[in-house]
Amino acid sequence: MRILLVNVNTSERVTRALADEARAAARPGTEVVALTPRFGPESVEGNFESYLSAVAVMDRVATYDGPYDAVVQAGFGEHGREGLQELCPVPVVDITEAAAQLACLVGGEYSVVTSLRRTVPQIRARLRQAGLDTRCASVRASGLAVLELERDHGAALRAIAAQAERAVEEDGADSIVLGCAGMAGLSEAVREATGVPVVDGVAAGVALAESLVGLGLSTGRRGAFAPPLPKEITHWPLSPALEGAAHGPSRPAAADAADGLTASCPARTR
Amino acid sequence: MRILLVNVNTSERVTRALADEARAAARPGTEVVALTPRFGPESVEGNFESYLSAVAVMDRVATYDGPYDAVVQAGFGEHGREGLQELCPVPVVDITEAAAQLACLVGGEYSVVTSLRRTVPQIRARLRQAGLDTRCASVRASGLAVLELERDHGAALRAIAAQAERAVEEDGADSIVLGCAGMAGLSEAVREATGVPVVDGVAAGVALAESLVGLGLSTGRRGAFAPPLPKEITHWPLSPALEGAAHGPSRPAAADAADGLTASCPARTR
Amino acid sequence: MRILLVNVNTSERVTRALADEARAAARPGTEVVALTPRFGPESVEGNFESYLSAVAVMDRVATYDGPYDAVVQAGFGEHGREGLQELCPVPVVDITEAAAQLACLVGGEYSVVTSLRRTVPQIRARLRQAGLDTRCASVRASGLAVLELERDHGAALRAIAAQAERAVEEDGADSIVLGCAGMAGLSEAVREATGVPVVDGVAAGVALAESLVGLGLSTGRRGAFAPPLPKEITHWPLSPALEGAAHGPSRPAAADAADGLTASCPARTR
Amino acid sequence: MRILLVNVNTSERVTRALADEARAAARPGTEVVALTPRFGPESVEGNFESYLSAVAVMDRVATYDGPYDAVVQAGFGEHGREGLQELCPVPVVDITEAAAQLACLVGGEYSVVTSLRRTVPQIRARLRQAGLDTRCASVRASGLAVLELERDHGAALRAIAAQAERAVEEDGADSIVLGCAGMAGLSEAVREATGVPVVDGVAAGVALAESLVGLGLSTGRRGAFAPPLPKEITHWPLSPALEGAAHGPSRPAAADAADGLTASCPARTR
Amino acid sequence: MRILLVNVNTSERVTRALADEARAAARPGTEVVALTPRFGPESVEGNFESYLSAVAVMDRVATYDGPYDAVVQAGFGEHGREGLQELCPVPVVDITEAAAQLACLVGGEYSVVTSLRRTVPQIRARLRQAGLDTRCASVRASGLAVLELERDHGAALRAIAAQAERAVEEDGADSIVLGCAGMAGLSEAVREATGVPVVDGVAAGVALAESLVGLGLSTGRRGAFAPPLPKEITHWPLSPALEGAAHGPSRPAAADAADGLTASCPARTR
Amino acid sequence: MRILLVNVNTSERVTRALADEARAAARPGTEVVALTPRFGPESVEGNFESYLSAVAVMDRVATYDGPYDAVVQAGFGEHGREGLQELCPVPVVDITEAAAQLACLVGGEYSVVTSLRRTVPQIRARLRQAGLDTRCASVRASGLAVLELERDHGAALRAIAAQAERAVEEDGADSIVLGCAGMAGLSEAVREATGVPVVDGVAAGVALAESLVGLGLSTGRRGAFAPPLPKEITHWPLSPALEGAAHGPSRPAAADAADGLTASCPARTR
Repeated sequence: MRILLVNVNTSERVTRALADEARAAARPGTEVVALTPRFGPESVEGNFESYLSAVAVMDRVATYDGPYDAVVQAGFGEHGREGLQELCPVPVVDITEAAAQLACLVGGEYSVVTSLRRTVPQIRARLRQAGLDTRCASVRASGLAVLELERDHGAALRAIAAQAERAVEEDGADSIVLGCAGMAGLSEAVREATGVPVVDGVAAGVALAESLVGLGLSTGRRGAFAPPLPKEITHWPLSPALEGAAHGPSRPAAADAADGLTASCPARTR
Repeated sequence: MRILLVNVNTSERVTRALADEARAAARPGTEVVALTPRFGPESVEGNFESYLSAVAVMDRVATYDGPYDAVVQAGFGEHGREGLQELCPVPVVDITEAAAQLACLVGGEYSVVTSLRRTVPQIRARLRQAGLDTRCASVRASGLAVLELERDHGAALRAIAAQAERAVEEDGADSIVLGCAGMAGLSEAVREATGVPVVDGVAAGVALAESLVGLGLSTGRRGAFAPPLPKEITHWPLSPALEGAAHGPSRPAAADAADGLTASCPARTR
Repeated sequence: MRILLVNVNTSERVTRALADEARAAARPGTEVVALTPRFGPESVEGNFESYLSAVAVMDRVATYDGPYDAVVQAGFGEHGREGLQELCPVPVVDITEAAAQLACLVGGEYSVVTSLRRTVPQIRARLRQAGLDTRCASVRASGLAVLELERDHGAALRAIAAQAERAVEEDGADSIVLGCAGMAGLSEAVREATGVPVVDGVAAGVALAESLVGLGLSTGRRGAFAPPLPKEITHWPLSPALEGAAHGPSRPAAADAADGLTASCPARTR
Repeated sequence: MRILLVNVNTSERVTRALADEARAAARPGTEVVALTPRFGPESVEGNFESYLSAVAVMDRVATYDGPYDAVVQAGFGEHGREGLQELCPVPVVDITEAAAQLACLVGGEYSVVTSLRRTVPQIRARLRQAGLDTRCASVRASGLAVLELERDHGAALRAIAAQAERAVEEDGADSIVLGCAGMAGLSEAVREATGVPVVDGVAAGVALAESLVGLGLSTGRRGAFAPPLPKEITHWPLSPALEGAAHGPSRPAAADAADGLTASCPARTR
Repeated sequence: MRILLVNVNTSERVTRALADEARAAARPGTEVVALTPRFGPESVEGNFESYLSAVAVMDRVATYDGPYDAVVQAGFGEHGREGLQELCPVPVVDITEAAAQLACLVGGEYSVVTSLRRTVPQIRARLRQAGLDTRCASVRASGLAVLELERDHGAALRAIAAQAERAVEEDGADSIVLGCAGMAGLSEAVREATGVPVVDGVAAGVALAESLVGLGLSTGRRGAFAPPLPKEITHWPLSPALEGAAHGPSRPAAADAADGLTASCPARTR
Repeated sequence: MRILLVNVNTSERVTRALADEARAAARPGTEVVALTPRFGPESVEGNFESYLSAVAVMDRVATYDGPYDAVVQAGFGEHGREGLQELCPVPVVDITEAAAQLACLVGGEYSVVTSLRRTVPQIRARLRQAGLDTRCASVRASGLAVLELERDHGAALRAIAAQAERAVEEDGADSIVLGCAGMAGLSEAVREATGVPVVDGVAAGVALAESLVGLGLSTGRRGAFAPPLPKEITHWPLSPALEGAAHGPSRPAAADAADGLTASCPARTR
């Protein structure tokens, strides 16, 4: 099967790291296609950036022109999953929910360790919206920004392990969720430092996407996530016009879609 | 004071109706500037459209180049308010929360009557996120789409009043919130039909924005809604590039901002 | 419009301070009539006093004999708002709810700083009952009694600012609510000390009462807050008989009402 | 032991019925003293009446001049229990909580059947405040007013049993709580009609008061229900002045207390 | 009346201590029969042991061959109460719920002090399941195992009183629940040390069982706790076969039941 | 990898059906070993049976003498998962939680359709305990007992599909969870009848167990699910003694463990 793994920021370096993590977790036979949004912030830390990123992720998936079987949104605590679910006829997995679910399976309560303190309320809101907050013991910040985490794994490890240990001792956490896609690759080291299970969102997201595809399950289309109604959507998808303006003439294929009446999302017929 | 009232869809007709409602509710001395997003759907019914609209609203406010004292986001149950709060140094009021708050002041529990059934889960999620769900007796759908509501006020009134009456009788609602900006202008008629208070979101949003400005209150900047950190944001704001691609050379003033390192939002110094 | 601002304790000095705060917050054209209950405690700190005060407030409003457009109950975390709503055909605003609502509009979570620790559980109960607890980060006590707060503003400011700063740093509050009517006049100083928005209940209550009146909204009468049924109520209202006993013959006008069959509340027809 | 059973309305007929129910439930050796408030409504249906009644109940207990071991507040869903707890150094039991607790012990979920629909929100609020709402399947109204229930037991039984059966069948109730003190005496008949346990509040309240006294447990005085602070309370207790005004010279003993500095409540030293 | 008090562990010494506590709390005329399970752990600290103990308790009651009027399950925070309720036609009281209920009656919030930290999540889960968590301020561990608590009352008292004081000061508890049956006998000393009400589960359980029997209330049989359906249950009850294997021929009376088609529980007809 | 799939009832026919379902869902390379408890009820419908079954499942796993990588507990809404987690050093997945998690991934809210009405409260309690109730729209009963469901798939399908359709239309469910292990094999037919995703617990449980093993995640051992402490456990495991009594001399290997001091669970070292 082919899984689209969509980074939420525009850093190609982060996209490559996410792809490595995803491929290490994937089963044999799973192809991971890692995508970077065509616009938006280089890192996502806050609501404005998260909303912009959500649309950039939807745009990136909507303009992907091959078949695929599932989508994994690789940003922790970010907006947008519900929109992707409406657009795509295949399963969509947000790494926030994937990680929290697996953490619940291996413990009573879990704590999230994330990047900056400013992202804590947003993560808590996202978990509450997903109905996964009841067993969340705490959300703690390491104090390092997303790009710092990604650049200095040693410092990242120390900061994360310190907060993870406090989560276990003070907050009663039985397991730890790494609350930032930029922490990919650190789960084993944090597990060794704390002695509790540590869940990485990208690995969890890939595993759950594989499970859904394997079981023939996809988003229900009768209710909350029905496909968008046909209607006029000015400039959608956005990237062809944006890139046309920035880099010269827009690509012909994309230009056709720029004023399309409906949002649609090519996917492998299942 | 000057309030930016931002429609969430691209229908100029809806923008004009919202402006009429807002001006009827505003105090003497309040100037209402009604804005229409430069991209996005002609009506917002679902999560994909709501996320796209959220960014279009932020883009519209970010490219408005005069001073203003408050922003009212005029879409019911839509995404984006938290992002606008980070961008703007002035108060931002979402009509969803404004309406639910006033409904709580005039009754024990309130019900929302909205457009299509597919928007019900999104409205419930938004109210839950805002901590306003405890006193929400129900969210009911009239069965009419946003543009239908706006086009045929007679049919809209009958459908809304019928659901409002059931909300009072069956769900125990003490008051009704009109759950769609396209219902602007119907509150008095629904009140007469049901005998309970009926809250229109646009009027409520304007009144609360005026109150916040009057009391010198604005969004706290130390915590959840701190301004975005300085960073590279590709193509932000989006509309200059989008419109440049579609309509010819982008406007000079906007072009300067197109690859700016930080998101910022001009507002009247207070 | 005329707003009745009812102090919950019998201290005329507090009533005058509340009136000053309310008038500073009111729009041009709003007349604030400040009332002091005719019986009850000189300060309200605890449930017994709060219940007694609730009835004294209702008695004071029921025996006010001019027209008015709204009532603001100026005690933080006190009982009685629902009773007033049944009695009065005009909007009734409790400063507890008013302040918490505005705090929600300018931040993600808010903390309350109140007087004595013994009032904390009562305030939390009141916020929970009003459905406003979800976004309450904490309720903290300054350790000063109501009358101490009112007498020494310097000491009050230091104690409140210290707790407010801890609420922001330790509890994640984005804004502060002054949780005692006796703190009127301190909001600006606490805002300067902490850098976060500070909401004063009296100002908030007046602003919301003005908004409700301006929008033509008042308490729903079909459900939870329907007017009292006609029935025998011994000695209601209480103050004519009480004052007659204490000070000589009861006032003729009041005496007529002393054994009335129904509770009623004169208000301006709207 | 001596238990003060305080009716919340001024109907002596109701007081006598409550006393009969209480005495039937009491153990040998328990003396039930039934008290009627000296002011307030003849029946309590709504918040205004409930607040007034709460103070009348406190006044009645505060002016009772013999020793006693516990107080049972015999109004379902009414205000005031927390105030009584501050005033009295002996256990105070509200029949609402007593009945809901025993119902939880004999089933998974319980439903309340009360008098008029207008009292439903107040009962739900009271149960929520007491933390007893989680297992409340529903609160249903019989449609009969308090005094109607008390006057026509046949009609009361039919109306209550019909709602009780629907609570079991439709709402999943395992047991029924009679949600009005005026239903005293009907529990056995409703149990026969429905086949589920039926809890009468007065009987439950007496039993729990006996248990608390028997185990030497009384209200904690360090926290939420600490005794009132010494302070000036105008006209407290209220009844001596009220009765003095209405009926002639106030009773000497009571007059002494009319302007007392502190609220106190004589009780048997334990 | 006769109450079966069932220890959850196999320590006869603990059973005797529980019986002493129960008899001290019981009214005149109440006979307490203390039972020890025929299999299972010598102390219960954790979920595996708690589940095993739950079945051992049900087995012990099912093989008790005299009449009885109520059952008290004397393990704090343990599994099994719902199963016993299905088996027995008489009231079943779990000391966890009994203690938490009485604690709610004498304070606003209560804290539990238990044995080891590992039992804290299980107790919290049990309280949440019983709908008694809303008013639980905290669950604290003394750090002493069940058998240590039972063996050294001096050390137990010091450890419990220290946590109880912190619960009052730091967590806002108004009362303390002793969260381990092995703490029987310490309630008075902890109350003296802290000045707040202290509830012992065994005493509370006996008192509530007496109240239910006295009021003629027993588990509802139409819903959640209907008697088991007739069906093949291999080896039930378990103890006759277990003891037969271990100690020789099983007792004749028990052998008859060993492969019975239905679970039943002899009890006094009421 | 080898997964132990443990039926919760003693019906070998059900065990075979579960094994078929599990093997159809498993990936290549996964070996499913299906186990039947050695004692307990032939079907599990109610709390008594569920508790007994929980211990029988733990006994069955504790006496399994080969290596294995994960355990799936194949009873919907049953007790015991936490105990198994303490006993086993490998992942333990309860099909209730597995199914609800996958249902959350493919929709906003899910409904459960189960066997008899009497099991509804138990399932709701289990979902609440697992923190998975927030997104549960309803739990509906088909009215057929476990063994009826397993015997007549045609009748089962009709009854389940009817309730599923009502869950979608009336309760707003976006997906359906089959709430009884005896429904194995019906998911595709119910999906066709309703057009919404249908999750079978056994398939979900196997998939999640495979994911956990694949990602190297297992139950955290520092907190809520630490291994049992060493202590005397009379007759544990139970089955050797039970079978010795019933069928002759117990098996030698098992006899050694019959009075062991600690509970342990052989598993493949990972």
